[in-house]
Amino acid sequence: MPRPIVLSGFMATGKSTIGPRLAARLGVPFVDTDAEIERAAGKRVPELFREEGEASFRVREGRVVESILSDGAPKVVAFGGGAVTVKRTRRFAVDHALVVTLTASPETIAERARTMDVASRPNLAVGGDPVARARELLADRAEAYAECHLSLSSETLDADAAVDAIVALAERDPLLVPLGSRSYAIDVCDDDPSRLTDAVARCAPSSVVFVSDSNVQRTRGEALEEALRPLAMSGARVVLAPGERQKNLASVSTVWDAALGAGVDRDTVLVAAGGGVVGDVAGFAAACLLRGVRFIQVPTTLLAMVDSSVGGKTGFDHPAGKNLVGAFHQPSAVVADLAHLDTLPHRELVSGLAEVAKIALATDRTLLERLEHDAGALARGDHGALLPVVRAAIDAKIRIVRDDEREAGLRALLNLGHTVGHALEAHGGYSRWLHGEAVALGTLAEMRATVALGWTPAPLLDRARLLFDALGLPTRVETSELTASWSHVGADKKRASGALRLPVVAGPGESRLERVTLEALRKVVCST
Amino acid sequence: MPRPIVLSGFMATGKSTIGPRLAARLGVPFVDTDAEIERAAGKRVPELFREEGEASFRVREGRVVESILSDGAPKVVAFGGGAVTVKRTRRFAVDHALVVTLTASPETIAERARTMDVASRPNLAVGGDPVARARELLADRAEAYAECHLSLSSETLDADAAVDAIVALAERDPLLVPLGSRSYAIDVCDDDPSRLTDAVARCAPSSVVFVSDSNVQRTRGEALEEALRPLAMSGARVVLAPGERQKNLASVSTVWDAALGAGVDRDTVLVAAGGGVVGDVAGFAAACLLRGVRFIQVPTTLLAMVDSSVGGKTGFDHPAGKNLVGAFHQPSAVVADLAHLDTLPHRELVSGLAEVAKIALATDRTLLERLEHDAGALARGDHGALLPVVRAAIDAKIRIVRDDEREAGLRALLNLGHTVGHALEAHGGYSRWLHGEAVALGTLAEMRATVALGWTPAPLLDRARLLFDALGLPTRVETSELTASWSHVGADKKRASGALRLPVVAGPGESRLERVTLEALRKVVCST
Repeated sequence: MPRPIVLSGFMATGKSTIGPRLAARLGVPFVDTDAEIERAAGKRVPELFREEGEASFRVREGRVVESILSDGAPKVVAFGGGAVTVKRTRRFAVDHALVVTLTASPETIAERARTMDVASRPNLAVGGDPVARARELLADRAEAYAECHLSLSSETLDADAAVDAIVALAERDPLLVPLGSRSYAIDVCDDDPSRLTDAVARCAPSSVVFVSDSNVQRTRGEALEEALRPLAMSGARVVLAPGERQKNLASVSTVWDAALGAGVDRDTVLVAAGGGVVGDVAGFAAACLLRGVRFIQVPTTLLAMVDSSVGGKTGFDHPAGKNLVGAFHQPSAVVADLAHLDTLPHRELVSGLAEVAKIALATDRTLLERLEHDAGALARGDHGALLPVVRAAIDAKIRIVRDDEREAGLRALLNLGHTVGHALEAHGGYSRWLHGEAVALGTLAEMRATVALGWTPAPLLDRARLLFDALGLPTRVETSELTASWSHVGADKKRASGALRLPVVAGPGESRLERVTLEALRKVVCST
Repeated sequence: MPRPIVLSGFMATGKSTIGPRLAARLGVPFVDTDAEIERAAGKRVPELFREEGEASFRVREGRVVESILSDGAPKVVAFGGGAVTVKRTRRFAVDHALVVTLTASPETIAERARTMDVASRPNLAVGGDPVARARELLADRAEAYAECHLSLSSETLDADAAVDAIVALAERDPLLVPLGSRSYAIDVCDDDPSRLTDAVARCAPSSVVFVSDSNVQRTRGEALEEALRPLAMSGARVVLAPGERQKNLASVSTVWDAALGAGVDRDTVLVAAGGGVVGDVAGFAAACLLRGVRFIQVPTTLLAMVDSSVGGKTGFDHPAGKNLVGAFHQPSAVVADLAHLDTLPHRELVSGLAEVAKIALATDRTLLERLEHDAGALARGDHGALLPVVRAAIDAKIRIVRDDEREAGLRALLNLGHTVGHALEAHGGYSRWLHGEAVALGTLAEMRATVALGWTPAPLLDRARLLFDALGLPTRVETSELTASWSHVGADKKRASGALRLPVVAGPGESRLERVTLEALRKVVCST
């Protein structure tokens, strides 16, 4: 049992029935936050609620939740029904525990509540029809309850089945991208085809459209087929031509044609198995098919695992520039199985490490130190070294994306190295440098600029260079190539009126955005 | 002043400063809901809040709001800061008044609150940093505050300028599609180009991409150009070929190419002037450009005004069927100017009346009676008769869409007549029948079926037929044509496993969904 387990959900959804059974099965303590609050305050919850008001009660409740979960010790914790309505409490829970939301219909809730002490349920006791009141509160709280690792109906599952499902969840220990009703779980595993089988089965699709490319099909097709076979689903298979140049409208259209030819409906699920191109193309196709069907991402490259599988960016390249047409469409699940990496060319594996190093430099000092420590094993593709690093890199990206889904603010920190990197890639015709290699060179070039501008301590640039070198990434590019690439910088859609918000590494794992004109940046990047 | 005006927004955003000034300017009373609550209860608001808890207080507050607004008399009403957090209160307000949200930054709010009686502000008085608390509450309430006819910053506008802007709003009297942060206003007007000018100006775009078709360009191009000229915006002009067959990927791609060729950025606004095809194509293009830019719809047909400008459905037709690829993308504004209808072929005007009659039959008895009363004038395109009908039809659609944006439930009622109608359209190669004509025939065929199935009273079918006839719509189609069209019914994406949820007219302006198998439906529709 890797983390505490939180049972959340509306009153009368079964938290106090399932909680003690689950704790007994796992042999860990059961804690009820309401009981802890009452013990600490020496007063009953309704009394506190009445005396101090809901807002103050939620602050008190949040403090108790944090003190219960912060030791990380294995336990089962039942939350009060409204605890997760406070964002800070909700996020603390998903960061420190596996959160399971138990659900029931308003009718069932009202019926079960009849036999309870209703006066002790301050929010349901407001005058009027209890079914209507429960429906209203469930609607108000829907986005908060949806931010969970697993949602279980206490009506369709009996207590034992619910306990089984939660034990299975603890074994998987997925990461959560908490985005309200668009939340999804990311499984990181090592050679376990059943994870994909289960992820598709949890969606209960009417049919499956499987999208990959011919490289993936050749190297991993059999393993993927094996994972899907138990589901015996109808649908379609789409095999795209491989390569960055296939991230175009024609590929998207191929997916649409195949899916619509197979008679998909709104309960269809697309499974996108491949690198960033397959994920972006199939994700965008899913976003627009019947105005949006679900999709599951199966990243088969390290880059796709740590980067493109978090954040919901989908789309394709237009002759006018990369990623200029697309949609934000969150997957329903991501299954990242390290086994796929074994057939990946070594250069591509190392290229993926550049995005890991980038996010570590920008946001995560612990990950940065781990990368420095394990650089050799990571560069060799050692699964034991990769597993925690992939999880940590995904987790670091989640922490940025979850508060900035539409890329209005902090998410721009993830563009570290990409302003110059994209230009190098474009200038090289997307063949001279792999994406991660260009990002590594771009990161060093941008850091060199921000050192010169007085924003980045010079030793940090040396440290980045040493790390990239140890990971097997390129660290040197001629000034003439940077200068020749520069015309591509202005074409990036993130520029606004001749200036951009540049991610600046200010310390190990710390960064901020600084406004800088393209001209000021060019002067430093393109000088010797 | 057509309706009461509500000032909403967080505490200390200027409601009690601007409210009395606005009331004085308009010569109407000013009412403060907190003062009314206190007068009725004989207690101060903080006291009530403490004694009965926030939930009960909100119920009390909602009742007071409803009693203040239900007489419809002109007045200015300042809401308590949290009033609109309750959906029922919020929706009552937008249904009965023009709602203006006043905004300010958390820093300004905390600063202004320092000089107020903080104890009287129960929600800001919870311990801790007031700026952080204000930021948190603003974030929690962002979706609720966004459901307004107009949002004004009390920081960038002084009180007089705010009063001017609200007076101008009252003159426009737009309808609101309340969808949280995706809310937008619909202006219905008669020959007033300044409405479009103002709608674009309110978006403060970096550039404008104007999309229309050659018919619109020929008949209305000059008037539209005149509306855009004062803005002197850079951007692009796209003129599509006219007609249903142009609702395809090639047209979408044309818009993408032109927009990206013109170097659009995320602050660009697309203006889509035309019928449903232009709106759907340009709306979808906007949804995907840079993963989503804003767009303004300028419907130039009656059908587009009453139907496709509400709901945010965008997309294009695929060889496998109509509307199979697309996105939900709400416009930022809609400007429906009846002047555009004067150059519309008479048959298309009448076709648009079919969608009005459909929504009236399904959801709005008052509108149904008005249509029956004014059928002759409407069929002639009389603006005096059309203006209230267009407003009422849009309003009826808003009431459905606002609670079912993604078409999961009630929105399916709007498919009345479309199951059979789409099949007739498709069988006729989209040339024999206009969309509205096919919907009229489809509505009668489906109603005939639901009469036979015992769900629709027979006299209602006669009433529908008489109305369609008075509006100049076709009411007769051969059984052989219905039979020949039937193969197209199964291809509709709304079918699920051989059955569908069919809208059933159960009374005048009343309908519900009934599950019926395709086979049962066919038997009645295709019999003589």
